[in-house]
Amino acid sequence: MRKALAQARLAMRLGEVPIGCVIVRDGEIIGKGYNRRNTDRTSLAHAEMTAIRRANKSIGDWRLEDCTLYVTLEPCQMCAGAIIQARIPRVVIGADSDKAGCGGSIINILQNPEFMHQAQVVRGVMEEECSAMLKTFFRELRRRSREEKAGCAGAETSSDA
Amino acid sequence: MRKALAQARLAMRLGEVPIGCVIVRDGEIIGKGYNRRNTDRTSLAHAEMTAIRRANKSIGDWRLEDCTLYVTLEPCQMCAGAIIQARIPRVVIGADSDKAGCGGSIINILQNPEFMHQAQVVRGVMEEECSAMLKTFFRELRRRSREEKAGCAGAETSSDA
Repeated sequence: MRKALAQARLAMRLGEVPIGCVIVRDGEIIGKGYNRRNTDRTSLAHAEMTAIRRANKSIGDWRLEDCTLYVTLEPCQMCAGAIIQARIPRVVIGADSDKAGCGGSIINILQNPEFMHQAQVVRGVMEEECSAMLKTFFRELRRRSREEKAGCAGAETSSDA
Repeated sequence: MRKALAQARLAMRLGEVPIGCVIVRDGEIIGKGYNRRNTDRTSLAHAEMTAIRRANKSIGDWRLEDCTLYVTLEPCQMCAGAIIQARIPRVVIGADSDKAGCGGSIINILQNPEFMHQAQVVRGVMEEECSAMLKTFFRELRRRSREEKAGCAGAETSSDA
């Protein structure tokens, strides 16, 4: 999870919501990724998607059957679905997501017995660190947003004068 | 849907499960894709994912808010999630999927009121054509599989002789 947090920090540096992911097989990282949705202008650029794509490339197979995926925030609908489609058997999650969490918070796509594949899920690993990074990011975002608004109001006042 | 079926035919030619998708905005196709999972060795190469990625690139935005997505087979967990993440407001589906359908067959990711976004869904458009293409593909696959097995058995018999 420390390596996934290091990936999340790369997202933070780009001004993206800090989410990071690594995929491990036989103790080796075979794919990693971080959120780049705004930078790459595609909602497909979530941390897990990039990590899965790289892991596929790394082993030359669409099946990631002996892998463990570590992610700092509970996967959304798309990423939970991608984990099931890639047949990843183990998922380790940092913080929960009450907005789009599909590893149990809203629905549980990772463990639906009606699907062809289910994953073993461990939640709350280094939860404080993962959650703190997201909270810091959103607090900073709100501060900047307030400052920008204040700046605009100031500019309007001076142009009115 | 005819254009989505034309995409599905491209998948069939590669020996892939024939599924095709197009995304339309203001009467114009801005993204299209077909299943290439085995060819590209990644489960992310579903028809809808390629179409979404291309549509994002085409308009330079991760939000596909004024678009309609047409797909020949009901989206799986990942693709239904990707549609929600891309905020696509309308989804038109050909055949239903009883294996992984997440537009209502198994679960309905496209219209879950607990998610931040829901899509309008129309099912059963050109269902016969979409379904027939899939049935033809799987029938042919089974026939080849039987022939190969028979071929192997023949080879074993002749080597035994």
